[in-house]
Amino acid sequence: MDKDTVKKIKSVVGSEYVLESPEERICYSYDGTARRGIPALVVLPGNAREVAEIVRLANEKGFPIFPRGAGTGLSGGSVPAEQGLAMVLSRMNRILEISRDDLLAVVEPGVVTGRLHRAVEKEGLFYPPDPSSLQTCTIGGNVAENAGGPRAFKYGVTRDYVLGLEVVTPTGEIINTGGRTVKNVTGYDLTGLLTGSEGTLGIITRITLRLVPKPRAVQTALAVYNRVEDAASTVTAMIRRGIIPATLELMDRITIRCVENYLRLGLPMDAGAILLIEVDGLPAQVAEEMKLVEDACRQNSCRALQTATDAAERERLWKARRAVSTAIVQIKPTKISEDATVPRSKIPEMVERLKSIGEKYGLHLPVFGHAGDGNLHPNILVDKRDPVEMEKAEKAVQEIFRAALDLGGTLSGEHGVGLLKKPYLEWEAGAGGIEYMKAIKKAVDPRNVLNPGKIFQV
Amino acid sequence: MDKDTVKKIKSVVGSEYVLESPEERICYSYDGTARRGIPALVVLPGNAREVAEIVRLANEKGFPIFPRGAGTGLSGGSVPAEQGLAMVLSRMNRILEISRDDLLAVVEPGVVTGRLHRAVEKEGLFYPPDPSSLQTCTIGGNVAENAGGPRAFKYGVTRDYVLGLEVVTPTGEIINTGGRTVKNVTGYDLTGLLTGSEGTLGIITRITLRLVPKPRAVQTALAVYNRVEDAASTVTAMIRRGIIPATLELMDRITIRCVENYLRLGLPMDAGAILLIEVDGLPAQVAEEMKLVEDACRQNSCRALQTATDAAERERLWKARRAVSTAIVQIKPTKISEDATVPRSKIPEMVERLKSIGEKYGLHLPVFGHAGDGNLHPNILVDKRDPVEMEKAEKAVQEIFRAALDLGGTLSGEHGVGLLKKPYLEWEAGAGGIEYMKAIKKAVDPRNVLNPGKIFQV
Repeated sequence: MDKDTVKKIKSVVGSEYVLESPEERICYSYDGTARRGIPALVVLPGNAREVAEIVRLANEKGFPIFPRGAGTGLSGGSVPAEQGLAMVLSRMNRILEISRDDLLAVVEPGVVTGRLHRAVEKEGLFYPPDPSSLQTCTIGGNVAENAGGPRAFKYGVTRDYVLGLEVVTPTGEIINTGGRTVKNVTGYDLTGLLTGSEGTLGIITRITLRLVPKPRAVQTALAVYNRVEDAASTVTAMIRRGIIPATLELMDRITIRCVENYLRLGLPMDAGAILLIEVDGLPAQVAEEMKLVEDACRQNSCRALQTATDAAERERLWKARRAVSTAIVQIKPTKISEDATVPRSKIPEMVERLKSIGEKYGLHLPVFGHAGDGNLHPNILVDKRDPVEMEKAEKAVQEIFRAALDLGGTLSGEHGVGLLKKPYLEWEAGAGGIEYMKAIKKAVDPRNVLNPGKIFQV
Repeated sequence: MDKDTVKKIKSVVGSEYVLESPEERICYSYDGTARRGIPALVVLPGNAREVAEIVRLANEKGFPIFPRGAGTGLSGGSVPAEQGLAMVLSRMNRILEISRDDLLAVVEPGVVTGRLHRAVEKEGLFYPPDPSSLQTCTIGGNVAENAGGPRAFKYGVTRDYVLGLEVVTPTGEIINTGGRTVKNVTGYDLTGLLTGSEGTLGIITRITLRLVPKPRAVQTALAVYNRVEDAASTVTAMIRRGIIPATLELMDRITIRCVENYLRLGLPMDAGAILLIEVDGLPAQVAEEMKLVEDACRQNSCRALQTATDAAERERLWKARRAVSTAIVQIKPTKISEDATVPRSKIPEMVERLKSIGEKYGLHLPVFGHAGDGNLHPNILVDKRDPVEMEKAEKAVQEIFRAALDLGGTLSGEHGVGLLKKPYLEWEAGAGGIEYMKAIKKAVDPRNVLNPGKIFQV
């Protein structure tokens, strides 16, 4: 980046918010994947006006901007290309409003998701989306990637909670989309289009989020099965009884063994699957639902069932699930975390196909994830220093995608396309679908300034 | 339209599905508004391939296509321009699949919404969106306009139930968006963008809809208030108790009087407002919620409260609400039905402003609608043969829009922009927002073939 451009950027944000040294730039070269790209410059703007000025400068000078929050993404969506500008939104981290009567919050993109959870819960409100990285990741990143999480089965994903956005367009205009009402059909749903657009159609500078009343009661159950098919039919049985649990987490045999080897919690090493089920709502409702849940578990060959109502007991049941990510990397240092998603009735078939794929390539392939919405997380465990193993992993990933699509599913349930799934997008969207998306990108970002090279090549 | 084009269209769909006579074309010249436009030709295609062929022909020959379902829209969205082709999707009316395990239905656009309700409820499932025209309107139109309805407060709008679409693009490609899973972040959310795009970005030929389990129990309450403010604070009080009722309908004093004069149900003519409240779910949950609802009503100066649990009693309580549309046109023959929406905390202020607007112009202006999501329906009652009154009504509508926007609301909660709200779109979306929308339209529909002149002029 030429000196004049750097000088102009410094005059916009103040030189203390422009990082130039290699050691500082390296800090913004990665996300939660193995992809790397050291940006030419890092800038931390403080408000929408500064963001807009830099975007206009990028259009004028022709340099690319790579927006990012906390960099916890799992698809390479925020990894910069070299010579580009990394734009970090973490300074814009104010919670501007929490309204109990209008059930909404207005926040800046740099607010950490877990901090928002705590702030709204203090007011008796609830923001359901709960990506695993919630103690670190930011709302801006959640919106840009349309993040999910365990509670999505009952409560939906981030998109279902975004009422309105303030956005800097790729040409540097500040626009407002949506608003403060749940119902809004005034023109195209730009709020929905921008949510999940991975920073390619605009930079989000303010977000109005829908909230719901905080559930008054929660109950948790942990059910152990000999066969994953029985866990899957429990899910179906619950739905047929009219129950949509708040979370419904599945762990397969390999995952259970990894966790048990790591933590010695007393999990049964011969179990085929574990379901972790949580219901929430008003007290009588929760009691009624839990009865139906237990009933569904027992009638579907569950071999052991533990329930918990107080916070300490619940935490004990969650311990195994929370330990999964740490436990599985004890086997191999590199974890390729996928999020291929299938219609829930196809879970047993998908688990079977994943098992075959693991065996075919001789790879460790634990499977866990969100059974209610078919959003499994097959994780391939490898050592990235071993090129033969990495090549096998790449082939296995392709077969996972093929399997998900064969079963009527999708490449990505909650991680996004970014860099990692770009080569496979056409398998799902088709040539016509990609052309439609590219037409939109080219129309609103004619100089290809915002996060170029992500999702697809224009 | 030249003879050669008509001949080609006949060869695509069969001549029995092309309507040429004036009396047939007049039948497709209107929707639920006072706008009219007699199309040059009417075509009723039978499948997506036929739709695509006609769209390609339109691109080649340069004629506009105006897609429509049952024509119940309230914004002029489906009214053709003269010399255009009205494309009626009502022949494509098959329910292709209802899956209890995957909680979804696959349907063609011409399926009448009420028919879908009955079909899925027979399977123990539930499709919540319930626009008032549900016995006539079609799912395709609901998706194109992103229809709402009374149940939206708890359950959300049509967009919240669209998982995937098959769409004919404005250049005549058949593409598929989304899929069969709730979680899907593979590329841009074209499903969301197309939902509510009012037929300007694609013609919907197949829809995959998310369903939920059918609630096992329902209870209804009717609460009478002296003042509309007390009805509004009841809404707030319920939310603060953690209750989101399935429906929460408000009628103001003028509406109550219209209904009572028409039906003699024994409604109190001096009441300031009536709330019709419905809760649904599992039996214990419904009982618990209704107790909290009654509590909220009583603590907010409700002067009379009736409740109902069985179907006959519930129907009796709903009678007044259902009669509103018919009752109010007894005063004047022309009804201008608006759907300006405000954040729910602003309902008392909005009702007050609407009252002043009615008085200022000497117009009958009953207000009713969906109090839970601030989606009021101010209705202006006039006689369209009286030009002076019509001019006053136009000015009143403008003031209603200004009031909604002043209070942080939106021009349209569930009717869409179409032709009627086009002059006011910029008030809400701003010049930058409209430019962004237009860029998308121009990019995907370069020859401006699909529903031109709706939402905005490109």
